[in-house]
Amino acid sequence: MNVTFLGSGNLATHVALALKSAGETIVQVYSPNFEHARELADKVGAEPVSDLSCLKQTDVYISAVKDNAQETVWQNLSSNGYIHDSSLMFHTSGSIGLDEVRKYFKRSAVFYPLQSFSKHRAVDLSDAPFLIDASSKETEEIAVSLAHKISSNVSIMDSEKRKVVHLAAVFASNFANNMYSIAADILGQDDIPFSILAPLIRETAAKIEGMHPVDAQTGPAVRGDMNIMKAHLGRLSSNYAEIYSMVSGNIERMRDDTNIKKQR
Amino acid sequence: MNVTFLGSGNLATHVALALKSAGETIVQVYSPNFEHARELADKVGAEPVSDLSCLKQTDVYISAVKDNAQETVWQNLSSNGYIHDSSLMFHTSGSIGLDEVRKYFKRSAVFYPLQSFSKHRAVDLSDAPFLIDASSKETEEIAVSLAHKISSNVSIMDSEKRKVVHLAAVFASNFANNMYSIAADILGQDDIPFSILAPLIRETAAKIEGMHPVDAQTGPAVRGDMNIMKAHLGRLSSNYAEIYSMVSGNIERMRDDTNIKKQR
Repeated sequence: MNVTFLGSGNLATHVALALKSAGETIVQVYSPNFEHARELADKVGAEPVSDLSCLKQTDVYISAVKDNAQETVWQNLSSNGYIHDSSLMFHTSGSIGLDEVRKYFKRSAVFYPLQSFSKHRAVDLSDAPFLIDASSKETEEIAVSLAHKISSNVSIMDSEKRKVVHLAAVFASNFANNMYSIAADILGQDDIPFSILAPLIRETAAKIEGMHPVDAQTGPAVRGDMNIMKAHLGRLSSNYAEIYSMVSGNIERMRDDTNIKKQR
Repeated sequence: MNVTFLGSGNLATHVALALKSAGETIVQVYSPNFEHARELADKVGAEPVSDLSCLKQTDVYISAVKDNAQETVWQNLSSNGYIHDSSLMFHTSGSIGLDEVRKYFKRSAVFYPLQSFSKHRAVDLSDAPFLIDASSKETEEIAVSLAHKISSNVSIMDSEKRKVVHLAAVFASNFANNMYSIAADILGQDDIPFSILAPLIRETAAKIEGMHPVDAQTGPAVRGDMNIMKAHLGRLSSNYAEIYSMVSGNIERMRDDTNIKKQR
């Protein structure tokens, strides 16, 4: 397939590289910043463009610009007729519905990889969940087959459910990472290298592949060890103490909440 | 070496199994609950006891009872003379100082494995940091050499620094796990299996082995994407919304804090 990428950020880069490796052709990479477009275009043998009017007609467009820029790009492409309004337009945003792109392109789909992408880190997409929601059966089949070039883990999921998954992912990934950041800051203040926590972090993440996280919970809060919690609070700055109290309270609440469904 | 375990919980179990595998002899396992003592004793070929007066004299005692029971056990053993007060007494608590055990046993050490232990999950201790703090050079050498039977990652660390590490570990492990729990609960309410997040959680944890977590941060808060954060808050119960706001605010604060030392 001939594919055009709109956007050249971390997600666009990793997905474009994976599609290229799978033998697809990336024709053009668009970014409003030409240097950014060129950086990705060079990696995948495509032409960089910074002007939407320069886009060629290709089999599919993968729209991976920033969430708050997606609609502007679609509107611009559609109202100016830079590409056919029958073009296949896939977007990669976890929190944008299918309806929002279908307003501009009848043959559209959500093509959302549930993974965290960083600039200078290769990521294995082979088992990353790709969540697909498409405007028609025909479009769905194309989106699923394109996702299968990259990952073995492709599901159909409507936009309402996908927003729930995206919200859950913020806790499981972004917020878990912020807990690592606080730990790193606490250690750094005593000149202790953060790497001392690496085996523990690795094990904590691995553990929940075999058990529900509520059952995997350890530490002073789940044991109700008030002495240690009090000592910890005494060592923390007010910002971190507030987080410590709130999360500890939530651990105790979840320990005792019999309504939590523990399907995996 | 002949080793006696005081305590038969998750930490005692995993450390005893590792020492047994390394060829050490576990003579007795003590727990106030005889059935618990027997469960671990059977696994490591030791004698179970539930009465401190039945303890035999061995080369070293590893005291791994609950934090709030440690001192009572030491006091009991020492004041009743059940074992020599020149016995080697090592304790495994991250948050208890060396002084607290040295009051009762002159030849004592902290023998703290920085890892998270669960009942039904084997854990690889071969690279788990063992943090040692000992009452003398001679005792330190014995503790270090015993830890080296289990792990290649053994450090000397005073009790003040170890308490900092223990506090950081609560954030990096216990609180990160609570973020997984919240994600699981959010998904469960829509009957979405938690396993969908496994590749993301794995990657998020793996990422910080190569970069500082503040630099690895992704998501709406670090991007300052107010629209998505507002939509997320609208979907959350008040408990989770409060955590969402507080952690998002902390992500923004840490993004902009130039005083964070990023040594690894």
